[in-house]
Amino acid sequence: MKAKPEDELVFLPLGGSGEIGMNLNAYGYGPPDARKWIIVDIGVTFGREDTTPGVDLILPDPTYLEEERDNIIGIVLTHAHEDHIGALGWLWPRLKAPVYATPFTAALVREKLKEHNLLEKVPLTEIPLKGQLTLGPFEIDFVTLTHSIPEPNGLAIRTPLGLVWHTGDWKIDPDPLIGETTDEAKLRAMADEGILAMVCDSTNVFVEGTAGSEGDVREKLTEIVARCTGRVAVTAFASNVARVETALLAARATGRTPCLVGRSMHRIFAAAQSVGLLQDAPFVMDEEEASSLDPERVLYLCTGSQGEARAALSRIARGDHRHVSLKQGDTVIFSSRVIPGNEAAIHDLQNAFLEKGVELITADDHFVHVSGHPARDELRQMYQWARPHIAVPVHGEKRHIREHVKLAQELQVPEQIAPRNGDLIRLAPGPVALIDEVPSGRLYVDGNVIIEAEDDALKDRKRLGAEGAVHVSLAVSAKNAIVAGPTINVRGLSMEDEEDFDIAVEELEKSAKAAFAKLNHSDREDDESVEANIMRAVRKSAERLWRKRPLVDVTVLRI
Amino acid sequence: MKAKPEDELVFLPLGGSGEIGMNLNAYGYGPPDARKWIIVDIGVTFGREDTTPGVDLILPDPTYLEEERDNIIGIVLTHAHEDHIGALGWLWPRLKAPVYATPFTAALVREKLKEHNLLEKVPLTEIPLKGQLTLGPFEIDFVTLTHSIPEPNGLAIRTPLGLVWHTGDWKIDPDPLIGETTDEAKLRAMADEGILAMVCDSTNVFVEGTAGSEGDVREKLTEIVARCTGRVAVTAFASNVARVETALLAARATGRTPCLVGRSMHRIFAAAQSVGLLQDAPFVMDEEEASSLDPERVLYLCTGSQGEARAALSRIARGDHRHVSLKQGDTVIFSSRVIPGNEAAIHDLQNAFLEKGVELITADDHFVHVSGHPARDELRQMYQWARPHIAVPVHGEKRHIREHVKLAQELQVPEQIAPRNGDLIRLAPGPVALIDEVPSGRLYVDGNVIIEAEDDALKDRKRLGAEGAVHVSLAVSAKNAIVAGPTINVRGLSMEDEEDFDIAVEELEKSAKAAFAKLNHSDREDDESVEANIMRAVRKSAERLWRKRPLVDVTVLRI
Repeated sequence: MKAKPEDELVFLPLGGSGEIGMNLNAYGYGPPDARKWIIVDIGVTFGREDTTPGVDLILPDPTYLEEERDNIIGIVLTHAHEDHIGALGWLWPRLKAPVYATPFTAALVREKLKEHNLLEKVPLTEIPLKGQLTLGPFEIDFVTLTHSIPEPNGLAIRTPLGLVWHTGDWKIDPDPLIGETTDEAKLRAMADEGILAMVCDSTNVFVEGTAGSEGDVREKLTEIVARCTGRVAVTAFASNVARVETALLAARATGRTPCLVGRSMHRIFAAAQSVGLLQDAPFVMDEEEASSLDPERVLYLCTGSQGEARAALSRIARGDHRHVSLKQGDTVIFSSRVIPGNEAAIHDLQNAFLEKGVELITADDHFVHVSGHPARDELRQMYQWARPHIAVPVHGEKRHIREHVKLAQELQVPEQIAPRNGDLIRLAPGPVALIDEVPSGRLYVDGNVIIEAEDDALKDRKRLGAEGAVHVSLAVSAKNAIVAGPTINVRGLSMEDEEDFDIAVEELEKSAKAAFAKLNHSDREDDESVEANIMRAVRKSAERLWRKRPLVDVTVLRI
Repeated sequence: MKAKPEDELVFLPLGGSGEIGMNLNAYGYGPPDARKWIIVDIGVTFGREDTTPGVDLILPDPTYLEEERDNIIGIVLTHAHEDHIGALGWLWPRLKAPVYATPFTAALVREKLKEHNLLEKVPLTEIPLKGQLTLGPFEIDFVTLTHSIPEPNGLAIRTPLGLVWHTGDWKIDPDPLIGETTDEAKLRAMADEGILAMVCDSTNVFVEGTAGSEGDVREKLTEIVARCTGRVAVTAFASNVARVETALLAARATGRTPCLVGRSMHRIFAAAQSVGLLQDAPFVMDEEEASSLDPERVLYLCTGSQGEARAALSRIARGDHRHVSLKQGDTVIFSSRVIPGNEAAIHDLQNAFLEKGVELITADDHFVHVSGHPARDELRQMYQWARPHIAVPVHGEKRHIREHVKLAQELQVPEQIAPRNGDLIRLAPGPVALIDEVPSGRLYVDGNVIIEAEDDALKDRKRLGAEGAVHVSLAVSAKNAIVAGPTINVRGLSMEDEEDFDIAVEELEKSAKAAFAKLNHSDREDDESVEANIMRAVRKSAERLWRKRPLVDVTVLRI
């Protein structure tokens, strides 16, 4: 295929450029009015109790691509982390393109699709490791890299206007334990062919040196477990199958029986076995059986390293877990990092264990974790291998992306661009340029509904959470007299003693009555007017009583 | 005064031993049934939007001391940080003891008392720096230390049963800029006299080396400001008057006019001047005037280094500030640390500035901040000076206190004890022992009300925040028929489009009607029964519709 004069190659990030997590990237090829699109990854990020209470998942807003739906020829997934595949089940119905992934990723994607009743609807094609895929003008090679999950792939995306090297998430792990090492030969060959642009992970651009190897963690973790007396619980991300295997083998090496605790441990364990991984894992016992083992004979492998309240480790810390309990002399090993935003929850969790006299071993002072993302020396190495003409840092907050641009400048990459979500960037014909800004943003998964970030529901919930709620009900006769109520219902506000609270409620009632009494005849006939006037009066009284600003709603029942 | 045989010297932390912040310590002397008490510090910690939404301040629960009120002979304050004095206005009415503080601390305490209308009621005595105070069996020397606020005092508390060295917050700053250096001669003299117990700051026990000096920050910060083009905003804790002075002098040295932005900057500036500090500060301009200066001629000194939404810096970042705006080419210098729990808010704030093209300078990669707490080398130095018989680490989470105990063991302190809030510890006659556990905990300042940590109001608010609220109102006749309603009011829940939302509300209405219809005559007569049945039915429907669990309340109006 040859490029036509009007053809362009464009890159469009809709997630992940401006935040860590929620990756969604698209590449377009063709004339401006008739581009063909591929989507690379479609991930989520997680809600925060402080800013998005009650919201479990946050999705990239796909509105722009939804409108281009007929021109989307495939969704290609680099690896199975939630921030790369988690939005598929939620957003696929809006995009409806065939999906491509390597076997382990495909196994986990199938589970997601099952949860959304989409398994029969979504065309999902498995691509072998180091496989190839042609989608319209895009010829894609899957390139083996190393990361913190099985089957991390970079994508070499060949187009008539040049080769884009989309790294996905990666590090250079000389001993990844599961999977092959970084396919350096392929990278060198691609560089010789000429890489137009490298779209690259920025997560750890502020970290000097290298990420470190899973192989070294295996050695250290086994030594540490060998020194433990009592029960041992290791917490790690379930998706890091190499780390899971490390914990299982450390158990075997130290005469302990491993036991998986937490739903996602079981889920990923099964997915890994389904693609031929963890075949030599020792026998894994179930939680109930394991509770009868001698403390020195068990190793629990738990979810919940981020202090998630409902995960196994938090339940154990609270003494809420049915079959697992830890006490003085036992040890918890955090084989994990602290995801920014989770510091407080993790400290609370760790302090709860310390309170019980449980020993803690963390990455702060022991070599029990390595990151899955490239530190600066690895980034330098990648740029040396790939020698791209354009550096396009993604997968980072603004500060990461900016720092990555600086690094690329130092490394004398001829062109760099710092993309933000929604930036439509022309990679070729050159020079690289921001040619448009398209709608982008976040959607919230709220229960089973997808809402906009600006939805009033969330604003109201934040106010309810901080300020509480007051509801006023009253029944009004045909002659516009109050015949029952006003009855006041207060939620989320308290007083130092009950009597004071009762007095406060009476005052709200009086305010409501007084506000109604002040209305003239025609205002009394109008529900909206009655509600607005009572609402204002009651809110004012509540503010005076509590120095808080509760949400006040009024219901008028007409008799 | 001589010790009687039945006399004991006890230490009781009610705050700060198990968390950083909210310090409240008490010392008791006398026979077990007639102890005299002094309170050392009475601080707050701050609420968190995720765990305590809407709660501004958290106080130590003083119930135990409240019951001992008649035996409390004084409240002694070491320094003016909020985690040492912030609870005074809230809790003094429960304790009613005279208050003692050095001049700068007293100036800020007076303002707090004014806010609580307590200025006329609280006996507040100013103690000069290096002054003395005798309270019953306690002879107290104020010992000059260095920290991150003017007038940090350790307390040498002499009793007939021995000398306790209560450090308060400290570091060893060879060049503190404001105030004298650590009174080493006094410490050596106390050691020669013999220190029974040292009750000591644990905040930075995990930090190797030393905290670093305010003098060095002054030099570096001035260099950095000199290199800036455009507007410069420096954010720092207002209470660090040495740092405030540094920013003011850096402005002068670089031809900029300083301008204070944020209420607490003005408040502390005035308090500092009232005790003779900041006398040589350059002229400080007001915000409105400063907005007409050339960008290169202004330096803003702002509150809000922790990303607090209502503080000056966040408002500037949002473009919400009346007189201050920053844009491409301007610089924000974070001369501050990240308080654990604030990481996400601070990153959001920093990213908002990066989004505008504003340059950021932080302690991550520039020497623009030093901690006010002792790192390990300083702790070692203090133990060498003081040579206490008992180490009592406080002012830290459990993990800090535990690590501090280990350090004291390494340093061959003969006895150590790791206190938790509520532990009544006998220091003498020895050996040190935990002799009782008394009630302790947290109180929340919620609006203008002090509530217990377990109050249902807060549980309800968290649920409202995450799950939303549904209210059902209906009017029921004397014959137990519905004559109006049920009317459904939904807050904090949404649907993808309005029509779906209306359908959902109709379904809730139907559920309410159906639940009422199912009730027999006597249940219909009973409001509680009507409410409970409708509540359950509506909650079930809401759960099905949204997969969320809103708080459902029902009001029955009897006609």
